[in-house]
Amino acid sequence: MNDSIGIVKTEQAHFDTELRLESGRRLGPLTIAYECYGKLNVDRSNAILVAHAWTGDAHAAGRHHEDDRRPGWWDNMIGPGKVFDTRRYFVISSNVIGSCKGSTGPTSLNPATGRAYRLNFPVVMVRDMVRAQKLLIDHLQIDKLLAVVGGSMGAMQALEWGIHFPDHVRAIVPIAGTGRTSPMSIALNALARQAIYNDPLWKKGNYRPEHPPADGFALARAVGHISFLSDTSMHLKFARRFSRMDGMFDFFGRFEVERYLDYNGSSFVDRFDTNSFLYLAKALDLYDVAWRFDSLEEALSQLVCPSLWFAFSSDWLYPPSQTEEVVEELQRQKKPVDYQLIESDYGHDSFLVEPEKFIPHLKRFLDQL
Amino acid sequence: MNDSIGIVKTEQAHFDTELRLESGRRLGPLTIAYECYGKLNVDRSNAILVAHAWTGDAHAAGRHHEDDRRPGWWDNMIGPGKVFDTRRYFVISSNVIGSCKGSTGPTSLNPATGRAYRLNFPVVMVRDMVRAQKLLIDHLQIDKLLAVVGGSMGAMQALEWGIHFPDHVRAIVPIAGTGRTSPMSIALNALARQAIYNDPLWKKGNYRPEHPPADGFALARAVGHISFLSDTSMHLKFARRFSRMDGMFDFFGRFEVERYLDYNGSSFVDRFDTNSFLYLAKALDLYDVAWRFDSLEEALSQLVCPSLWFAFSSDWLYPPSQTEEVVEELQRQKKPVDYQLIESDYGHDSFLVEPEKFIPHLKRFLDQL
Repeated sequence: MNDSIGIVKTEQAHFDTELRLESGRRLGPLTIAYECYGKLNVDRSNAILVAHAWTGDAHAAGRHHEDDRRPGWWDNMIGPGKVFDTRRYFVISSNVIGSCKGSTGPTSLNPATGRAYRLNFPVVMVRDMVRAQKLLIDHLQIDKLLAVVGGSMGAMQALEWGIHFPDHVRAIVPIAGTGRTSPMSIALNALARQAIYNDPLWKKGNYRPEHPPADGFALARAVGHISFLSDTSMHLKFARRFSRMDGMFDFFGRFEVERYLDYNGSSFVDRFDTNSFLYLAKALDLYDVAWRFDSLEEALSQLVCPSLWFAFSSDWLYPPSQTEEVVEELQRQKKPVDYQLIESDYGHDSFLVEPEKFIPHLKRFLDQL
Repeated sequence: MNDSIGIVKTEQAHFDTELRLESGRRLGPLTIAYECYGKLNVDRSNAILVAHAWTGDAHAAGRHHEDDRRPGWWDNMIGPGKVFDTRRYFVISSNVIGSCKGSTGPTSLNPATGRAYRLNFPVVMVRDMVRAQKLLIDHLQIDKLLAVVGGSMGAMQALEWGIHFPDHVRAIVPIAGTGRTSPMSIALNALARQAIYNDPLWKKGNYRPEHPPADGFALARAVGHISFLSDTSMHLKFARRFSRMDGMFDFFGRFEVERYLDYNGSSFVDRFDTNSFLYLAKALDLYDVAWRFDSLEEALSQLVCPSLWFAFSSDWLYPPSQTEEVVEELQRQKKPVDYQLIESDYGHDSFLVEPEKFIPHLKRFLDQL
């Protein structure tokens, strides 16, 4: 059985409107990049929105052309016969605003100046991203999503959908998320920021696109990378092996784990825009579901739809206790809530690396909707 | 009661000898900076060596002059009536080689060139540090230490003493240590290294002492700082508070935790040498008690003296499981071993922040020697 969705294409929807942001600033006109997989049914009730993490994009499944090296980021979840079965569901994946993967962000033209926004781009919150997604869902003439599902920053988006558009979503599935970003997580992002700020090529965001602050940005990515892994997954992958080519007693000799971080940081520089990375880091740091509510309790009281939550035992970026804080409040409020703590060694990345561990729960949940 | 040791002075011992290092290189002549507190008894049997962590120094207790702002780093442990009671014990604290606090290190003159070693300094291991300490102990005409006690890198030194000088130490107390540095810990040090390498002022170690790579070094220190804290201690200290002076929706606005990291990173630059920091990070990364043994089992079989081990529940840099790996092997070998897992919210730093939590166990252990 061929379970790939096949060749897909990223579309763009343009909105000649201004979004009023949480900061009070306005952003518009807007473009949202998105992909769709499967067919919308007649009563337009089978749409599932999948929401990506920090450096993700709209390309969640399939390949862009025949020799595409890598499929979309959740290709193991989306396709005929998979948990997001494209014979049953109409799956939508959209790039968040603030990113650089086709939606309006710091690399977009600022209509006020005719030049790229760069640091004139307004600070956006996850709530703003979700409001922009709502424009896309309206554009697709879908009144009510069957579900919003996402990991990490995608989990935040799922929760915001449930709370701010209770009439337009039938269920949410936040995976490896948090109700509010912890100071530890902010501190790690602060390291990433400072790594970029320290690079003379950054020029306060005014780098030339062909000369990004590569050294600083690669280091920033390495900070993130470490926080997505776990002590155990690093032991499994690298142990204490020394890099084959380097001398252990050379000052510049490296362990395998260092070489890996170097390599991945450097290759990332070509795939993402530095300013966009910083804006999304800011959105992550500012995330607090209780923002503009009196309390976590009040915020969560707005959620009416069923929710399914996953946390991973070895995730130290958004540890299970942070999901449990939210789940326990929902339980106290007698909301329909299901929580699964998944044993996995792969840290925060588990939601991408070991989907087979939570897919059965997710499938059961979707079948019951 | 005045329980301070009072005014103290750092001494230096010079050794006109060459130390053969684990790398095969030779280092000498050597200088070891040290401080002593209390009085050596007649049979020279009451000496306790305290071993410092990464950026520590010989100044473990008391003050250097009347208006000294801060006492030594373990002043709450060393003094009349304290756990290292200077009315009973003769306490020795020495600066490790590779550091910049008075012992031979990258800032010392290379006798071969008449100029500072900088990156011509040889890579040293913790085992080399301990061999240099042995020169000092011999110089003080002490044949057998009552105990070697230390936290973090100090714990590694204590363990090495027990294994490589079994006839010269009556007990060891490794606190918040590990038997071998994990890839997670190496990865964090790799971030710190890269932060320094990225700074144009670093100049491959040839920075002018008055113009150190301050931005990169401050960032490197911030990496360390995060790993010494815990999610809980950051919550207690900073929560999600935004910096009073900054705007939440300003691109450059900061959370309190960021301001703290900035401040501490920057102030550290004036207190430590960048190259020394890198050499000590390397020594930490290379640490493996089984180095030059066939196995952990064989290495630990060399330990004959009683040992007392402390780990802290919230320490994620050297988590309790790493101490337990060593302790369990010692138990299997029926060695005299005592292990205390201390509940503390202060992460790796707990050994400096909450000594009152382990002092009673330590006191009992010392009393029994």
